[in-house]
Amino acid sequence: MAGSDRRKRSAAADAGAPTVILVNPQLAQNIGTAARAMLNCGLSELRLAAPRDGWPNDKSIPAAAGADAILDSAKLYGSTEKAVAGLNYVFATTARERYLAKSVLTPREAAKELRARAASGQKCGLMFGPERMGLVNDDLALADALVRIPLNPGFSSMNLAQSVMILAYEWFQAGDATPARENRYGQSQPADKAELLNFFIMLEKELDESGFLRVAEKRPSMVRNIRNMFQRAGLTEQELRTLHGMVACLVEWRNMPGETSTPVRHRRDRKKPPRVV
Amino acid sequence: MAGSDRRKRSAAADAGAPTVILVNPQLAQNIGTAARAMLNCGLSELRLAAPRDGWPNDKSIPAAAGADAILDSAKLYGSTEKAVAGLNYVFATTARERYLAKSVLTPREAAKELRARAASGQKCGLMFGPERMGLVNDDLALADALVRIPLNPGFSSMNLAQSVMILAYEWFQAGDATPARENRYGQSQPADKAELLNFFIMLEKELDESGFLRVAEKRPSMVRNIRNMFQRAGLTEQELRTLHGMVACLVEWRNMPGETSTPVRHRRDRKKPPRVV
Repeated sequence: MAGSDRRKRSAAADAGAPTVILVNPQLAQNIGTAARAMLNCGLSELRLAAPRDGWPNDKSIPAAAGADAILDSAKLYGSTEKAVAGLNYVFATTARERYLAKSVLTPREAAKELRARAASGQKCGLMFGPERMGLVNDDLALADALVRIPLNPGFSSMNLAQSVMILAYEWFQAGDATPARENRYGQSQPADKAELLNFFIMLEKELDESGFLRVAEKRPSMVRNIRNMFQRAGLTEQELRTLHGMVACLVEWRNMPGETSTPVRHRRDRKKPPRVV
Repeated sequence: MAGSDRRKRSAAADAGAPTVILVNPQLAQNIGTAARAMLNCGLSELRLAAPRDGWPNDKSIPAAAGADAILDSAKLYGSTEKAVAGLNYVFATTARERYLAKSVLTPREAAKELRARAASGQKCGLMFGPERMGLVNDDLALADALVRIPLNPGFSSMNLAQSVMILAYEWFQAGDATPARENRYGQSQPADKAELLNFFIMLEKELDESGFLRVAEKRPSMVRNIRNMFQRAGLTEQELRTLHGMVACLVEWRNMPGETSTPVRHRRDRKKPPRVV
């Protein structure tokens, strides 16, 4: 990866984003995947407290999938106590019920707290325990509050990098303004209602001529249902042109030489010419 | 893992949870990690459309970390078209901007939609593309709407299992009632205010005697600040007993033989006896 890419990525990281502290991580691969998850969500500062297999560790690099800058700048500490120095507020993540007198927040609520603290200039941290056991109580005692991810109680053991992902994701979402739902129209625009009505009239004329709407008492409700179905699709101008063309093409055989152009009442009696679409 | 564990885990999976469809997944390890993420969040039905390295694949098992039931019951399909059969509504996930006329939802909004549809008995699906490239446009055309995870625009390439995790996580949270913030008190309860006041009075008496509060005009604000600091900690009954004991122990030396018990005005002139805490 070129240096310019790295600079772009560093620049995209959020200045007030929390520091991630991995306490005694066992697998370097998880450190790499955690780094990738961090950069996905604009986090950039990684601290490692006594990783089992030492640091730096080449096995972390492929798993980081390009988030090398985070691995390169990761800081190594001998203990959790040392790793929290320089931070003003620290959340510890935990998967199990802990009998400690401490607040327990959902990741979403913790993200709000982190955003509020970052806005007032505080430097915050998110602490994660080792893969097998999680943080020990002595580590939890160093944290201001706990975060627990609500999960299936029958299977709540989560991969380390997945936990980092969830917390980092919630941090990013808490500061992101993407609309919850956006209707996209490709290169086109939603069709003008007049155009849509033109299509309905053309379609209904062809359906009349083909005999599809031949039962008079059913016609009004059938027309309503057909209109509603196309209405609901939220068609674009381009799609409406496509539908016009489709219907025109489907009825074209009726006007072919040897065919009658009078309204058809009993299609089943007629033989349709072969046509490959 | 014992069969009973498996049954417990299956039982914990949510009946209305969406089916996960992995289209052309490349790495069996990612299939395993995705299965683990699914079960973490109560999803149980996995469909594989033309996985690159075939199926079943032993490399998926360690990564699933116990979510074997999901791998065992995963269904194999030859194409995306076949894999969506039996579903009523399908979201396709995408990491990039797509110029298709289709709604794009955030994972949170998509989760609400999935919950609403599940509540009305619809069977829904979440479709994920292969690791390197994501879903092709022909696959997207089979979906009702798109889901795009808002991420750092400078580094938005996400691991497949991480994407599954985010969508599964949002599904679970949309149906979960965990309070956003809960104050835990361990085995104790928040202290009675009368007990807290007793502690303040005892502490202030000792601080008077030790000379800490000797400047009369500063005393009222110092007392307020000290009270506020302990007040804010939200102490439990047990913690208050500990604090009482701590203060009593810290002043004990003053009453030791050879020491005066009169108020001390100038501590710096005195030599504290050695005491190992």
